[in-house]
Amino acid sequence: MRQAGTNLPKVGRYNRAVVLDQIQLADGISRIEIAQLTGLTPQTVSGIVRRLLDEGIVREDGASRVASGGKPRTTLRLNADAGSAVGLHFDPVELTCAVVDLTGRPLVVKKRPTPAATDPSHVVTAMAELVADVLAEADVPHSRILGLGLAAPGPIDQELGMIVTPPQLAHWTRVPLQSMLSEATGLPVTLDNDATAAAIGERWSGAGKGVANFAYFFFGTGIGGGLILNHQVYRGGSLNAGEFGHSSVLPDGPECYCGNRGCLERLVNPSAIVAEVHRRLAADSGDSSVLSQSFAKDPASVDHAAIRLAAAAGDPVATAVIDEAAEHVASVAVSIANFIDVDLIVLGGHGIQHVESRYVDIVAAALATRPLARSIRVVQVEASPLGTDGAVVGSAALVLHAAYSPQLSALLAH
Amino acid sequence: MRQAGTNLPKVGRYNRAVVLDQIQLADGISRIEIAQLTGLTPQTVSGIVRRLLDEGIVREDGASRVASGGKPRTTLRLNADAGSAVGLHFDPVELTCAVVDLTGRPLVVKKRPTPAATDPSHVVTAMAELVADVLAEADVPHSRILGLGLAAPGPIDQELGMIVTPPQLAHWTRVPLQSMLSEATGLPVTLDNDATAAAIGERWSGAGKGVANFAYFFFGTGIGGGLILNHQVYRGGSLNAGEFGHSSVLPDGPECYCGNRGCLERLVNPSAIVAEVHRRLAADSGDSSVLSQSFAKDPASVDHAAIRLAAAAGDPVATAVIDEAAEHVASVAVSIANFIDVDLIVLGGHGIQHVESRYVDIVAAALATRPLARSIRVVQVEASPLGTDGAVVGSAALVLHAAYSPQLSALLAH
Repeated sequence: MRQAGTNLPKVGRYNRAVVLDQIQLADGISRIEIAQLTGLTPQTVSGIVRRLLDEGIVREDGASRVASGGKPRTTLRLNADAGSAVGLHFDPVELTCAVVDLTGRPLVVKKRPTPAATDPSHVVTAMAELVADVLAEADVPHSRILGLGLAAPGPIDQELGMIVTPPQLAHWTRVPLQSMLSEATGLPVTLDNDATAAAIGERWSGAGKGVANFAYFFFGTGIGGGLILNHQVYRGGSLNAGEFGHSSVLPDGPECYCGNRGCLERLVNPSAIVAEVHRRLAADSGDSSVLSQSFAKDPASVDHAAIRLAAAAGDPVATAVIDEAAEHVASVAVSIANFIDVDLIVLGGHGIQHVESRYVDIVAAALATRPLARSIRVVQVEASPLGTDGAVVGSAALVLHAAYSPQLSALLAH
Repeated sequence: MRQAGTNLPKVGRYNRAVVLDQIQLADGISRIEIAQLTGLTPQTVSGIVRRLLDEGIVREDGASRVASGGKPRTTLRLNADAGSAVGLHFDPVELTCAVVDLTGRPLVVKKRPTPAATDPSHVVTAMAELVADVLAEADVPHSRILGLGLAAPGPIDQELGMIVTPPQLAHWTRVPLQSMLSEATGLPVTLDNDATAAAIGERWSGAGKGVANFAYFFFGTGIGGGLILNHQVYRGGSLNAGEFGHSSVLPDGPECYCGNRGCLERLVNPSAIVAEVHRRLAADSGDSSVLSQSFAKDPASVDHAAIRLAAAAGDPVATAVIDEAAEHVASVAVSIANFIDVDLIVLGGHGIQHVESRYVDIVAAALATRPLARSIRVVQVEASPLGTDGAVVGSAALVLHAAYSPQLSALLAH
């Protein structure tokens, strides 16, 4: 695709989104502040705000006297109830569905196990039932539902709305999930990679709000990632950017399913962490670990969640294994800092629940001491404030982002 | 910085650059083809082309009858002689200066050793002398010189026009090279990181012409890199993106000056390659290598250039060491494919002269078998067609790029 030009209608839509973006980012903002932050003229901002007020997307929220003692400025806020989005996170093990308001706040969240069906249509039926349940409980008028965002394991063919051979879904090859789910629910469906969706969720209402450049690590069944560069979702030439899990951190490490060796994901995915803890517990003659007793009774009880809880409580075996995993993540984070020079790295997903601070501390220490440009500025790292809801909030944010965020891909579309 | 809006004058300048970019990319193009490729209306394209013709930047070059038998279309080309740019590549060992025409073709190239002066002003004097020499020989009217592009080792503070503690230039700390050189030459100076400059050169007239997303590896005294994403130079939050040389490819490898361990640059920089070949030659009792005899007489004669030439001729010791270096590069290339999902990786710089094809073959084999999304498309790799002129053509291209390329940073500037 060539670099495209633009035109007035596109500029109008883009500037409208830029204004709305500032209102969404701020906790109350005036017209003049929007003009200062965006470089738009006060006249342009006023015209756009008038239309957003008319449409009910934005509301006026009193006036604040400015420090200089000048004319009071009317504060603008997003009207959270003006619309809702449904998000569905499709994990091979569990389906999670949420309805969120315009600010991305979840109103209802529900889960159910993913049917162990090799036939995708059974899974789509389960998805549609869950969506109906959530919508019934949320009691949002159907006219206010902007759409359904579906976050699925990658790789995805976004243009065709298909899932392309997801690594943990045997027999799923080029399934047209988007159209199947749209038909089953009657809602327009926006499909994206789960990690990209979670990154968009961070941009909408998480750690990435207002951050120009950030990388998001998604710790789920595997390790995915997403990139926001220059305030835009960066997808890459084949729409598969952000696969941070497949950096070779040990060149002679074990083979990964992806064809590479010693990949980050191969070393620190939940099964690998569980296997390593089991190995150490089996080799441990003493009882230095609180996990030893459970392991002796029933090895299966020492699962990833139990290990993370034990590490959070300071258990030596669990902390050692988790910290080694975090060191591998840190090494990839340093490469991301050196290659992509992001402002922030966000760590999220249920795979680091309870041990967020161990991961953050170890990655932060590496980012403070190892990237080449650290004397110019140190890349920050944060755990996602959305917690385990990150993926489902992200899937709903796909809809909000598509509807409202300023997107260069639209400004420059053919 | 917040995401900015835009306005009509900026859109006008941007669309003008988009049209010029298509003319620069194509080997002859019609107005209607430009409209089709850019999404601009034929009226907008015609208006812009008329002004470009008036300014002499573009010329009409006959007409071609279209296949459909319709009205002949006038072919447009860049007027190569409408302007010139000077490029200066500042390597710690050697200064290279070139004058190029609008298409980026070098008219004159000259080199001189970089003075081994700890005082930056001596180096600036040498630079200004070299620029004067080159301009005298090129015999281009002064009024046609658009400016001087200076490519220097990073990190650079581009906003202040300074070099910030370059790793191979002891005692150079925050030197305001841009203003010093501008004063010494009387030309406006555009300063950039050498690897970014070379990437821009590839975009202007090398392997990256018209490629939306590519990563450039610059093999010089060290290993630098540059990124073009969505047709734009991607600089990162602190303007230091593309440091591909500082990925940890051996986690327990030797310490790198950057503070990291086992960095690509630490393992495959010219001195490291020379040291490894010397070690093998010293240990080699026989004479399996053509380099053995030279090494016995004078180890210093077996330098990086000699090793590359020997590897190009198939010498077993030299090829083994170069191929191992290329394997490390390949591993980083796979991470770039997985993280950034570029369309193309370009390898350039004098550090791979004579062994370009060994590097390309090994990186290509890795890109075909190891990235996660390879079933969707295989990331391509090419040696820079600009050869050892890449850096100096790139420094001149800094001027052409700043003057003519469609830049979102200008479309969205505050």
